[in-house]
Amino acid sequence: MTPPPASTTPARFIDDYLLYLLARASHVVSTEFHEQLRRRGISVPVWRVLASLIGSTGETVTGLAEVCLLQQPTMTKLLDRMVRDGLVKRSQDTRDRRVVRVALTPRGETVASELAEVAKHHEAEVLARHPEAEALAIKSLLRAIMARNGKPRRGR
Amino acid sequence: MTPPPASTTPARFIDDYLLYLLARASHVVSTEFHEQLRRRGISVPVWRVLASLIGSTGETVTGLAEVCLLQQPTMTKLLDRMVRDGLVKRSQDTRDRRVVRVALTPRGETVASELAEVAKHHEAEVLARHPEAEALAIKSLLRAIMARNGKPRRGR
Repeated sequence: MTPPPASTTPARFIDDYLLYLLARASHVVSTEFHEQLRRRGISVPVWRVLASLIGSTGETVTGLAEVCLLQQPTMTKLLDRMVRDGLVKRSQDTRDRRVVRVALTPRGETVASELAEVAKHHEAEVLARHPEAEALAIKSLLRAIMARNGKPRRGR
Repeated sequence: MTPPPASTTPARFIDDYLLYLLARASHVVSTEFHEQLRRRGISVPVWRVLASLIGSTGETVTGLAEVCLLQQPTMTKLLDRMVRDGLVKRSQDTRDRRVVRVALTPRGETVASELAEVAKHHEAEVLARHPEAEALAIKSLLRAIMARNGKPRRGR
């Protein structure tokens, strides 16, 4: 009696569980790119903030924390460090002076767009591993999941 | 000059970036279920271990850490606690006595299968929000992402 190796047993609950498949797919695709970040001395949270601010006129700390999947106090500390490193700046919202907005500095923009190029190159590699129809379906299906399952986002 | 709100600007880099869409889709779908776990007093890592062991004859600590997306020292401490709580047990592998395998206790099996039912109910709710063809495509596309992008898994 030779049972198949435990880690490939088809009866495993998680192998057919949507939330696991989502977390796993996200993990396998991200791991490679996070390794590229590590080699450049950039942490994943710093990259997330930089990436969130590309093409943005400024985000609130709450909005950034939400987008980057970080707790707000963690985000505040991270932003303090990124301000010291000259990557981002805080400023008052032009319409509501009580609101603080975070945006890239010129140096932050340079670093962010260099990394975004690496990211886009990696993304193209990932998608090239799939047949064309599958590659085309991936993003739209992920957008559909976000649209149908997320809480409605309030303006931030 | 009234620019659109920053958080919905279509020019945002991340809104068309695969790794962000994956992380976000995983997050929005998981958040609801994690709330259900919280109400039952179960932490996400404990649920992950329980879920990984359903239908398994035993997993190594390394294998569990990998599947649950946790560092090995964190996993070891978590397992110590779960052994104390009577949810899992450690035992020697039947074929290689140097290898320790972790499996559910009878109490662990009861808790795990109750939670798995809640999880499957939530999964059905998530999929029911999609048109049928889309719902059917989701898991197979996620499996394709895992198959084409993961490192080949060694036997563990």
